Amino acid sequence: MARTPGVAELVERAREGQPRAVARLISYVEDASPLLREVTAALAPYAGRAHVIGLTGSPGVGKSTTTSALVAEYRARSLRVGVLAVDPSSPFSGGALLGDRVRMQDHATDPGVFIRSMASRGHLGGLAWATPQAIRVLDAAGCDVVLVETVGVGQSEVEVAGAADTTVVLLAPGMGDGVQAAKAGILEIGDVFVVNKADRDGADSTVRELRHMITLGSGPRAGSVADPWQPPVLRTVASRREGVEEVVAALDEHRGWLERTGALTQRRRTRAEGEIEAIAFGLLRTRIGDLHGDARLESLAARVVDGDTDPYAAADTLVAGLAL
Amino acid sequence: MARTPGVAELVERAREGQPRAVARLISYVEDASPLLREVTAALAPYAGRAHVIGLTGSPGVGKSTTTSALVAEYRARSLRVGVLAVDPSSPFSGGALLGDRVRMQDHATDPGVFIRSMASRGHLGGLAWATPQAIRVLDAAGCDVVLVETVGVGQSEVEVAGAADTTVVLLAPGMGDGVQAAKAGILEIGDVFVVNKADRDGADSTVRELRHMITLGSGPRAGSVADPWQPPVLRTVASRREGVEEVVAALDEHRGWLERTGALTQRRRTRAEGEIEAIAFGLLRTRIGDLHGDARLESLAARVVDGDTDPYAAADTLVAGLAL
Repeated sequence: MARTPGVAELVERAREGQPRAVARLISYVEDASPLLREVTAALAPYAGRAHVIGLTGSPGVGKSTTTSALVAEYRARSLRVGVLAVDPSSPFSGGALLGDRVRMQDHATDPGVFIRSMASRGHLGGLAWATPQAIRVLDAAGCDVVLVETVGVGQSEVEVAGAADTTVVLLAPGMGDGVQAAKAGILEIGDVFVVNKADRDGADSTVRELRHMITLGSGPRAGSVADPWQPPVLRTVASRREGVEEVVAALDEHRGWLERTGALTQRRRTRAEGEIEAIAFGLLRTRIGDLHGDARLESLAARVVDGDTDPYAAADTLVAGLAL
Repeated sequence: MARTPGVAELVERAREGQPRAVARLISYVEDASPLLREVTAALAPYAGRAHVIGLTGSPGVGKSTTTSALVAEYRARSLRVGVLAVDPSSPFSGGALLGDRVRMQDHATDPGVFIRSMASRGHLGGLAWATPQAIRVLDAAGCDVVLVETVGVGQSEVEVAGAADTTVVLLAPGMGDGVQAAKAGILEIGDVFVVNKADRDGADSTVRELRHMITLGSGPRAGSVADPWQPPVLRTVASRREGVEEVVAALDEHRGWLERTGALTQRRRTRAEGEIEAIAFGLLRTRIGDLHGDARLESLAARVVDGDTDPYAAADTLVAGLAL
């Protein structure tokens, strides 16, 4: 059996672009391995370079086709690309590609592309927590662009999108799509809107409706009072790669805006705050859990049962006595 | 407008058995009112007297009919009874009786009976947390018996059952019921098993199967090595009140066993430990949440973004600096 490389060696290999090292590090993240703390520390100096782009949208709008077309476009520019396909509702994940991700196999043999499906197995904090860690791995591995494609809808989508520098909201022509977007809250999170399948009936009205809603909802965004970002609404037929170049141009423009206005640093700091809080919360949860069988907790519980104190006062005492 | 009575006055009125005071206190619990801490403290000296009985079982076994029959039986003995109908899956609750709880209206005008439906609205910790608090209200209000009827199935049922001194598992004749019970883990939580609708085909085999499974699974239970409790399997036709007297006798016997062996105190202490932990956890969560906008968190986040530290190390620093 081959020797298992240590974390430092894995990170070194990942930085050299070795796919197996990248895959193993992401597995550590996904499985919440005991090594995760060491992995995160080892990655810290190398993160923050990649442009992290989130792709979100309802099922059927062509997310995986669009992701594949974006990968091809970035590869044509000789950029290294990482793809995370995140499915908050699925317990399945790993190296195996999911069914509708079959188009991504165009890129499966390209050494400049890392593709990974992630699911929520094992993770206490869920994918909202694991995703930024996996992004760090791909970032440290030298990816210029990391595409985070969220499968599924709703709150988890919004949370996962929160891990991106730039969020692309995909729609397809169809009745009430704009209204649905507003309801799902994705109008607020979109930096670039893409109406895919734009060769279909109704594309014009979907674009018009979106532009109208964006104008109505526009206001100064973080770090942008003097230089506001107006989210563009673009058209693509991703299956024929039509309009994809323009999407990449808009993404580059947004990245430039983020850097110019300081919004990039602001967004990333807010994100880091959330991450630190989530980890701190997990640490405290563990400390509380460790109190099972502790004499202090037992004696407080006995006093509650006897009516000498109440659970709130007992919790105050317990928290005050926590050795942090 | 009438003056709103303070917590101390409400608790006093509840102890005198005034239904509106009881209802308001339970609303405070259910809504996680800011007054909840005060309410819990005011109730502490008066709790621990009632026999808390949990009723659980799959939909269709006749839980609400059985609850109603048990209420009638206890009332025939001039005992005061509280009923909590807990539905972890429903956002609806309050004074209004749920549809299938219509039989409980037999007791709606009886001043010796408090009936309350509870749902999970607003509660951070969910009903598993709110239920013991509501039980305290009914206990302090002088209920001799509190019946906690859980609507729904699965883990939430097991958690809510954890709030009871004695847990009744209801089943109805039918293929594979015993196996289902084993799968759902209710074989472990049942102190008294009741096969309702015992006039139907298959009742004998359900009873036999259950007795067999209980014998297989029997072992010493908490506080009972020298004096073990063997869960009885009883038959009822609750709609005709057949067998209900025997169920009440078994419940009394179990209560006697709990007191005799010290298991009652042991169970209640374990329960109080869980409650204290949950509240302590909530307090810490609030402290962490209060750090939004805090300079320490902001500076740690900036260092994570700059790659000077990683989120785990930052979380350690944050937790170490928490003023508890």
